[in-house]
Amino acid sequence: MTRDVGVEESPEVWETRRARAALARIVEPGDERAGRWLEELGPVAVWRAVREGGQPLAGASAHRWAGMRLRAERTDPDRDLAAIARLGGRFVCPGDGEWPRQLDDLGASRPIGLWVRGPCSLRLVALRSVALVGARACTDYGAHVAAELGGALAERGWTVVSGAAYGVDGAAHRGALAVGGATVAVLACGVDVDYPAGHGELLRRIAADGLLVAELPPGAHPARSRFVQRNRVIAALTRGTVVVEAARRSGSLITARHAERLGRHLMAVPGPVTSGLSAGAHRLIREHATLVSDASEIVELTGAMGEVAEEPARPVVPRDLLAREAAQVLDALPAVGARDAEELARGACSSPEAVTARLHELSSLGFVERVGDRWQLCR
Amino acid sequence: MTRDVGVEESPEVWETRRARAALARIVEPGDERAGRWLEELGPVAVWRAVREGGQPLAGASAHRWAGMRLRAERTDPDRDLAAIARLGGRFVCPGDGEWPRQLDDLGASRPIGLWVRGPCSLRLVALRSVALVGARACTDYGAHVAAELGGALAERGWTVVSGAAYGVDGAAHRGALAVGGATVAVLACGVDVDYPAGHGELLRRIAADGLLVAELPPGAHPARSRFVQRNRVIAALTRGTVVVEAARRSGSLITARHAERLGRHLMAVPGPVTSGLSAGAHRLIREHATLVSDASEIVELTGAMGEVAEEPARPVVPRDLLAREAAQVLDALPAVGARDAEELARGACSSPEAVTARLHELSSLGFVERVGDRWQLCR
Repeated sequence: MTRDVGVEESPEVWETRRARAALARIVEPGDERAGRWLEELGPVAVWRAVREGGQPLAGASAHRWAGMRLRAERTDPDRDLAAIARLGGRFVCPGDGEWPRQLDDLGASRPIGLWVRGPCSLRLVALRSVALVGARACTDYGAHVAAELGGALAERGWTVVSGAAYGVDGAAHRGALAVGGATVAVLACGVDVDYPAGHGELLRRIAADGLLVAELPPGAHPARSRFVQRNRVIAALTRGTVVVEAARRSGSLITARHAERLGRHLMAVPGPVTSGLSAGAHRLIREHATLVSDASEIVELTGAMGEVAEEPARPVVPRDLLAREAAQVLDALPAVGARDAEELARGACSSPEAVTARLHELSSLGFVERVGDRWQLCR
Repeated sequence: MTRDVGVEESPEVWETRRARAALARIVEPGDERAGRWLEELGPVAVWRAVREGGQPLAGASAHRWAGMRLRAERTDPDRDLAAIARLGGRFVCPGDGEWPRQLDDLGASRPIGLWVRGPCSLRLVALRSVALVGARACTDYGAHVAAELGGALAERGWTVVSGAAYGVDGAAHRGALAVGGATVAVLACGVDVDYPAGHGELLRRIAADGLLVAELPPGAHPARSRFVQRNRVIAALTRGTVVVEAARRSGSLITARHAERLGRHLMAVPGPVTSGLSAGAHRLIREHATLVSDASEIVELTGAMGEVAEEPARPVVPRDLLAREAAQVLDALPAVGARDAEELARGACSSPEAVTARLHELSSLGFVERVGDRWQLCR
C-alpha cells in the first residue's frame, strides 16, 4: 500500500519499470499514440523496438521515429532510477501499490510512470484530494483565498494538489503546509528542478512534508506543452478542481476543461466583477462550474463522488487494507484523546517524521483527524 | 397607450377607478383574499359592500371586517385621486392602457391599482426592464457595481427598476439617471412621501425623469410588511431581477424568490467570498440564479424571454400601436443621423421634456437609441 522503495521486485517487474523509465525520457507527456503502443505491446517491447530501430511502430512517421531513436541513444533508465533513489524518491508505475488508479481514466494519455519525492503514499493521499489552481499573477485576494482554502481543506483531512507555480498554486500549497497538512505538487519538470526558481524553498518543504510528482524524469526542464499536459495529471489525480482566480485566457482553464472531461467536479471561486482576474472563474460558473465560497462547500461537493463516496461512511478504505506501518500508527492511537507524532512514534517504534507521513495518509483515508498539533481517531 | 391623464372616461370606468382607489386605502398590498373578491365581484361591488357594512364578504372574520369598515369610514377616493392629480400623477388600474399586463401574473395578489408619478408610460418603460436590488448597507464595491449596471442597462435602452432604498437601490437609480436613462422606483409608501428621508432629492429626480410607483395611496407610510409586498411588484414588473449585494438574510432575497416563482430571470452579481455582503448572492448562484458580471450578460439573458422576446428582432411592439405623441417623435427622427430632444421637440411640436419621456419609451421599445446627448433610429 505505501511506497515501494526497498521492496524486492521480480526481474520481470524490474524490467518493466526500467522500460517505463526509459520511455518516460523518450516520449513527451500526454502522447496518446505512444500510450496505445504501451497498451498493445507493453513497455518492454516498445522500449526494445525504439532502442533497436527497425520498422517504426504503427502510426509513427519516419521523422518522428528517427527523433525517438536519437533520444533513445542518450537514454539510460538505470541512471534515472539511480538519480530518483539518490533523491530519496521512487518511480511509481501502473500496477504498483502506490499507483493512483484514477489516473487510468486518462486512457491512452495515462502517464507512463510518475517520479515521486516525499514521505506519503501518492495513492493514499490522492484518494481525498482537491486541486486548487489559478493565476500566477494573482491578486492579494486570490492569494488570500487560495491560502485559506488550502489550510481549511488540509484541516479537514483533504490533500491539496496544485502545480507549485507562483500565485494561487504557491498560496494553496503554503496554506496546507501551514496547518501541517498534506499537499502534492505536480510539476512540469523533474522533481529535482527548482522551477519556478523562487520556489526552491517551497519545493523542498513539499518534498519533506508532502509529495513532489512529475511525469518527466529527474533533470528535465519545463516547456509550454509540458505545463498543458501537467494540468491533465492534476485534474485526473483529484476528485475535483477549484479555480481560484483566472483571467479569461488562462492555463487554469485547461485544468478545468480536463477535470470536466474526466467527470471530476469543477468548481470556481467568484471574485469582484471589476477584477479581470476573476473573469475566467465567473465564466466557468456561468458555463458549468459550481460556485464555491469556502472549504465546506468544496468538501460537500467532492465528498459525494465516485466509487469511494458511494459509501458515505468513513473511512474510505477498509482497515485491513492498510499497510503495516499505517496500521501500527493507527493502533498506537488511544480510543479517546489525542496524541502528537512524537508520542505515537514511541508507540509505533518509528520516527516522528515517518509517523507524520502515515498520519497524513490515515487522515486522507478518514481514520484520523488533527486537533492542533495532535491527532485523534475520527468519531 | 401612454398615460391616461386628461382622457375623458365613461362614468362606468370612473366608478371602477374610484372603487379601486378606495380599496387601495382599505386593503393592504398583497391581500389575496381581497384579490379574490375583486375577481369575483368586481371593485365597485366590493367597495360598496365594505362601505355599507352588512354581511362580511367570504372568508373575512368579524374582526377583520370591522377593521375594514373602520378604514372605509375614513376613506375618500376622490380626495386621493385629487391628491395624485395635484402631484401631476395618475392612478393606473388594470384595463388601463398604461397598466403593465405582466402584473397579472401575480394572480389574486395583483395590485388593486398603482399610483404613478412621472413623464413615461409605466407599461412601455416596463416592457424592457430589469430590477436591480441589493443591500441597503452595501459596500463601495456593491454601490459601484449597481451604478455601473444601472448606467450600462439604461444606455442599452433598458429600464432600471428598484426600490429607492439606500445602498444598491439608490446607486442603481442614480446610474441610470446619470446617463439620461429611464428608471422606475417602486415604493412601499405613497409617491409623495420622502422615504428614506435622505433620498428626497433622488425621488424628485426620478419623478421628473422616470417614474415613482406605489400600491399605497398618497401620504401612506412604509411598514415592514409593505416592503415585502413591494418586492413582489418589483419582481413581477420586470423581466428579471439582479441581486447585487445581499447578506444571507436579506430583503433582496425575497424579491429574488418572487422573481423565480413568477418565472422571471433570476440573476446575481458575485463578489469577494471574503465579504459577507456577497454571501446571499453566492448562495443564489449556487441554488438557481445565473451569475452575471456585466450589463451585456443581463441583456443577453433577459432579452430572450417571454412573449416579446420570442421574436428576437426589434422593435418589441409594432409601430402602429404607438401612441400619437410617441409616433410623432419617431417621425421627427431622420433616417440617418442623431438629433437632440430640443431639435425633435420643434419637429414634433412639443416640449423637450415631453419629447425626452417619449424617447425613453421608444428606447425601451427598441425603436431608438441614445448616442451621447442625442438620439437616433435603431439600425
